[in-house]
Amino acid sequence: MLIVMDHAATEAQVAAVAAAVKAMGLVAQPIPGSERTAIGVLGNEGYVDDSSIRDLPGVREVIHVSKPYKLVSRDFHPEASVVEAGGVRFGNGQPPVIIAGPCSVESETQMLAAAHLVKAAGAHMLRGGAFKPRTGPHSFQGLGYEGLKYLRQAGDAAGLPVITEVMRIEQLETVCRYADVLQIGARNMQNFDLLKEVGKLGFPVLLKRGMSATIEEFLSAAEYILAEGNERVILCERGIRTFERATRNTLDLSVVPLVRGMSHLPIIVDPSHATGKRSLVAPMAKAALVVGAHGIMVEVHPDPEKALCDGAQSLDGAGFSKLMAELNVLRGIL
Amino acid sequence: MLIVMDHAATEAQVAAVAAAVKAMGLVAQPIPGSERTAIGVLGNEGYVDDSSIRDLPGVREVIHVSKPYKLVSRDFHPEASVVEAGGVRFGNGQPPVIIAGPCSVESETQMLAAAHLVKAAGAHMLRGGAFKPRTGPHSFQGLGYEGLKYLRQAGDAAGLPVITEVMRIEQLETVCRYADVLQIGARNMQNFDLLKEVGKLGFPVLLKRGMSATIEEFLSAAEYILAEGNERVILCERGIRTFERATRNTLDLSVVPLVRGMSHLPIIVDPSHATGKRSLVAPMAKAALVVGAHGIMVEVHPDPEKALCDGAQSLDGAGFSKLMAELNVLRGIL
Amino acid sequence: MLIVMDHAATEAQVAAVAAAVKAMGLVAQPIPGSERTAIGVLGNEGYVDDSSIRDLPGVREVIHVSKPYKLVSRDFHPEASVVEAGGVRFGNGQPPVIIAGPCSVESETQMLAAAHLVKAAGAHMLRGGAFKPRTGPHSFQGLGYEGLKYLRQAGDAAGLPVITEVMRIEQLETVCRYADVLQIGARNMQNFDLLKEVGKLGFPVLLKRGMSATIEEFLSAAEYILAEGNERVILCERGIRTFERATRNTLDLSVVPLVRGMSHLPIIVDPSHATGKRSLVAPMAKAALVVGAHGIMVEVHPDPEKALCDGAQSLDGAGFSKLMAELNVLRGIL
Amino acid sequence: MLIVMDHAATEAQVAAVAAAVKAMGLVAQPIPGSERTAIGVLGNEGYVDDSSIRDLPGVREVIHVSKPYKLVSRDFHPEASVVEAGGVRFGNGQPPVIIAGPCSVESETQMLAAAHLVKAAGAHMLRGGAFKPRTGPHSFQGLGYEGLKYLRQAGDAAGLPVITEVMRIEQLETVCRYADVLQIGARNMQNFDLLKEVGKLGFPVLLKRGMSATIEEFLSAAEYILAEGNERVILCERGIRTFERATRNTLDLSVVPLVRGMSHLPIIVDPSHATGKRSLVAPMAKAALVVGAHGIMVEVHPDPEKALCDGAQSLDGAGFSKLMAELNVLRGIL
Repeated sequence: MLIVMDHAATEAQVAAVAAAVKAMGLVAQPIPGSERTAIGVLGNEGYVDDSSIRDLPGVREVIHVSKPYKLVSRDFHPEASVVEAGGVRFGNGQPPVIIAGPCSVESETQMLAAAHLVKAAGAHMLRGGAFKPRTGPHSFQGLGYEGLKYLRQAGDAAGLPVITEVMRIEQLETVCRYADVLQIGARNMQNFDLLKEVGKLGFPVLLKRGMSATIEEFLSAAEYILAEGNERVILCERGIRTFERATRNTLDLSVVPLVRGMSHLPIIVDPSHATGKRSLVAPMAKAALVVGAHGIMVEVHPDPEKALCDGAQSLDGAGFSKLMAELNVLRGIL
Repeated sequence: MLIVMDHAATEAQVAAVAAAVKAMGLVAQPIPGSERTAIGVLGNEGYVDDSSIRDLPGVREVIHVSKPYKLVSRDFHPEASVVEAGGVRFGNGQPPVIIAGPCSVESETQMLAAAHLVKAAGAHMLRGGAFKPRTGPHSFQGLGYEGLKYLRQAGDAAGLPVITEVMRIEQLETVCRYADVLQIGARNMQNFDLLKEVGKLGFPVLLKRGMSATIEEFLSAAEYILAEGNERVILCERGIRTFERATRNTLDLSVVPLVRGMSHLPIIVDPSHATGKRSLVAPMAKAALVVGAHGIMVEVHPDPEKALCDGAQSLDGAGFSKLMAELNVLRGIL
Repeated sequence: MLIVMDHAATEAQVAAVAAAVKAMGLVAQPIPGSERTAIGVLGNEGYVDDSSIRDLPGVREVIHVSKPYKLVSRDFHPEASVVEAGGVRFGNGQPPVIIAGPCSVESETQMLAAAHLVKAAGAHMLRGGAFKPRTGPHSFQGLGYEGLKYLRQAGDAAGLPVITEVMRIEQLETVCRYADVLQIGARNMQNFDLLKEVGKLGFPVLLKRGMSATIEEFLSAAEYILAEGNERVILCERGIRTFERATRNTLDLSVVPLVRGMSHLPIIVDPSHATGKRSLVAPMAKAALVVGAHGIMVEVHPDPEKALCDGAQSLDGAGFSKLMAELNVLRGIL
Repeated sequence: MLIVMDHAATEAQVAAVAAAVKAMGLVAQPIPGSERTAIGVLGNEGYVDDSSIRDLPGVREVIHVSKPYKLVSRDFHPEASVVEAGGVRFGNGQPPVIIAGPCSVESETQMLAAAHLVKAAGAHMLRGGAFKPRTGPHSFQGLGYEGLKYLRQAGDAAGLPVITEVMRIEQLETVCRYADVLQIGARNMQNFDLLKEVGKLGFPVLLKRGMSATIEEFLSAAEYILAEGNERVILCERGIRTFERATRNTLDLSVVPLVRGMSHLPIIVDPSHATGKRSLVAPMAKAALVVGAHGIMVEVHPDPEKALCDGAQSLDGAGFSKLMAELNVLRGIL
């Protein structure tokens, strides 16, 4: 931690700050400069709460050097992790994992059709939402537990592991019985109680970046899961909220190489929610592989025009097969 | 709903879209223009899912006229609501409600001191967090159920109703036993399961705007609570996330008059979390009253420099008394 | 400047960074910590370009303590400045300056009507755009030099100094002949050549914050003008671009007390462009005074529904008179 | 244009709006719905200013269907344009154009070294800034006219056409003598006077997206150039400003396929300014090609650690050669 003093801070003010640092059990090292004095804080292990210092007279700014996360950091865990989930492996040295399926489970027939379709095209895992977080209460909220069964049946029929979103703690036990991977959605990225409970399970988790989460917050959310003992975490970039509304969100692809440098956890990309437009899904999916994503999660529906949710961003069977062919060509050269 | 066609859309494409609208049980009214055709959609009651239309050939854009909320809207509920909570009334024609207290409950002594301090200065309700949502797991997470007791004791001792944040469904029953008002924090604004459960209680709820929630999403989140039968909802603006990081968030004060026009629910402002800086709390609190807020929620700590959480944005006793005096002068002329 | 090294940085890497700092003529002071080493950089006067250091092996982050501005900073110029412009004084201890008038000069008659109207209601300065920055080229672009004449005539007739926007360097000489204060619009806040030329004049300038300018960039833009010798600069907050589109921009009122603490320059607020909605102008104007703005710039049109530009955010005569009455009451208690 | 009325709007209010539409010479077609009436506006050619309508009693919202641009739109110019500049062709069916060189011209030697280096690696055009827009006035501002000469000499020596930024109108004549392509930087994207003057020249222009410009504003800025008769415009995405500060900007790659659908103009990507980090440049450059960019502009410096500007985001010779080899492999499969 570095404490920057005002240009006009007095020696007494500098001394008072140094005393407050010592009162916290830490070491204060003044760094006098030509324009102002700064005070380096040494001896802390991890992030320091600056409440007792930030507002002392003469303090202009407190700059944190330590981050609120440590277990997810590559700084302390230099080798990249490979996370196994449902028999599939996410991480460096592994082929990119393709997760595909409809936004929501709508019926037994729809899930079966979707599962066979994505399997035939080469996907490695089946997605499908049984519990759906919708902006308003008057939209379709998902089939619930019935949806979980259809998802599992479809996965089994097609020979694919399945992933589905969990929205509340009471659902965890049941969802773990039906699914191979738990998904925490963007809206729940800072639902810390859910993160903690998921951390207590030995179950693999896909954690989506919150709509306005900084990378620091994203990694700190993952830290909640690891701090409870669960290291089977896969990160997922899915677009952030910006002023631009021509796309549903703004897909921030540069986080993929950035996070790969900062954390040992694998990271995949969801181009469907990020763009909200079918025509943009394939180009962004390919770009995701090129920047180093360990996988892709893409919405595929046997009949997108009849989808109860997010049809406009779903690929149909032909679109997904074409994308898979293109991804395979790309993989050949990566 | 208005469907805007491409300039070069063919008559067959227009006809296909009209047919899709009819298949949804709605009426399609083409509006030919000099540059392109638009198709008005009539007959819907409420928001229409556009999945089956948005991606048909020749469609350029689908524009929604209906909103995903209705119960919270002033359009269908013209008179402003007054919400009673803990013996205090929020809404038009009522004096602004001042809620004050520490960010988190730290000890029995601290809460008692805080309660007497804010009561003496004229506050109407006591705040204090027992469960704290913190960015990282290594920060102080609150005292939990023990904190609830201290909060209640302090409120009783000072003669103040109390409000506290609830973060998970299992806490609801206990929290309702100790608190007079439930708070849903910004990070849980779209924790829809929590909203639904809170909606099933007859208990008053303060709902904070999510960090990157549009007003439409904010009102839709409130709609979840009303849709379950609970109309005792108070909205709270607490700053949004923008590119500007000189303040913790950007306090969007214009939403106060805007929301008062769009919804019948009362709305208050939290200038402490919005700015993150003690020196900005008082000016923004006063501005909030001036733009029409039905109340203010402000962090006050008997000894901010020793606060375990958010000390830098907390007022001390003297600061809060000064603010209350200024607010009283303002109220005299509003 | 503080250079933060990786946890795993070697001693040789630390030494290489220290050598690079010395090569810049500065002093490097290593600060060893329990988790990593940081290197304090001493001896710089002002902002240091970190290009030669930021990417050296083992460097994790470079943190700047010095700012890219100095002349506008209160750190080096502790007393607040009062800027005189057109016989009116902006700054601490002065009554707030009310600038009013139409978005654009449309005709001689319109300007005369507007001038008499705002004068009668108590405004201190007349605004009106002769050169209009419009998103697209097919919208009304302003009357140009003819507009300047009408503005001047109207100001003279009503006894008001006038302010108008300048968009290109060649206009400066003529605009200075007609106007009392130059306005640099949000879109030109980083038109550095224009800033430099304006800095060479002894003329008062109102500098609007760019739509996505941080406060650091805003103050640095003002620094361009002061660096050329012109200290007669008035800052103006006019809303920033955020994800929220229910208002035209998001008025960031907290910058007023914040900038007053960081800079000695006066700062005013434009609630009209910030909100884009007539009904929000009056509450936000009042709030601006309450948070300490040294003035307000508000759009007033004799007949808003016939305005060629921004009619929907313009007050009419009655609306402005009502606002002035309310502002006067507020001023009585501030 | 669609005018949406309040739920409670009276028939008289609807009639008044219809009358106002007719007074503008347009046709009003009421569309009664179950919840509210909407009024379609027909007969307009292009964008309609809604000032006289947006604030009439009973009006809830005005929705624009026409855009503020037309000449740049693919709607009215279905075939993609190929823009020739300095002997190089940008657009569909052309190999992607690689523009490379230092952020700023620093000396004759540096430019010659850079030119030979990028030519040897296979670049098609040389970049180098003579006039530099810097946040603060105390940073290096570029060599000015002397820099133009060095740039031209270096381009001639290496056999490369050159591109450079122009910041003020008076520079245009000279810059056109030295350069093959003009660059309008992000900060000047809405410097409309500069756009108009550039539009009057028959000279090719690279227009960078403003830091917080929507796609609509970006295309409208290009419209200013085309409206003056200059169709030789190349668009350039260079990252937008968002809440995320871990990268300098957020590269919005999805605009490439999106803009290719909306406009006939070619579009390229600048991964250097977008990310601000050397390690992210290569992955994002490759991703840009994959999503369909017609070219890439990348910063290359013979000795990045000694660069006077943006060294941390510049590739050195080896880094650029490696990138070119990877891009060539990618091009083979695209």
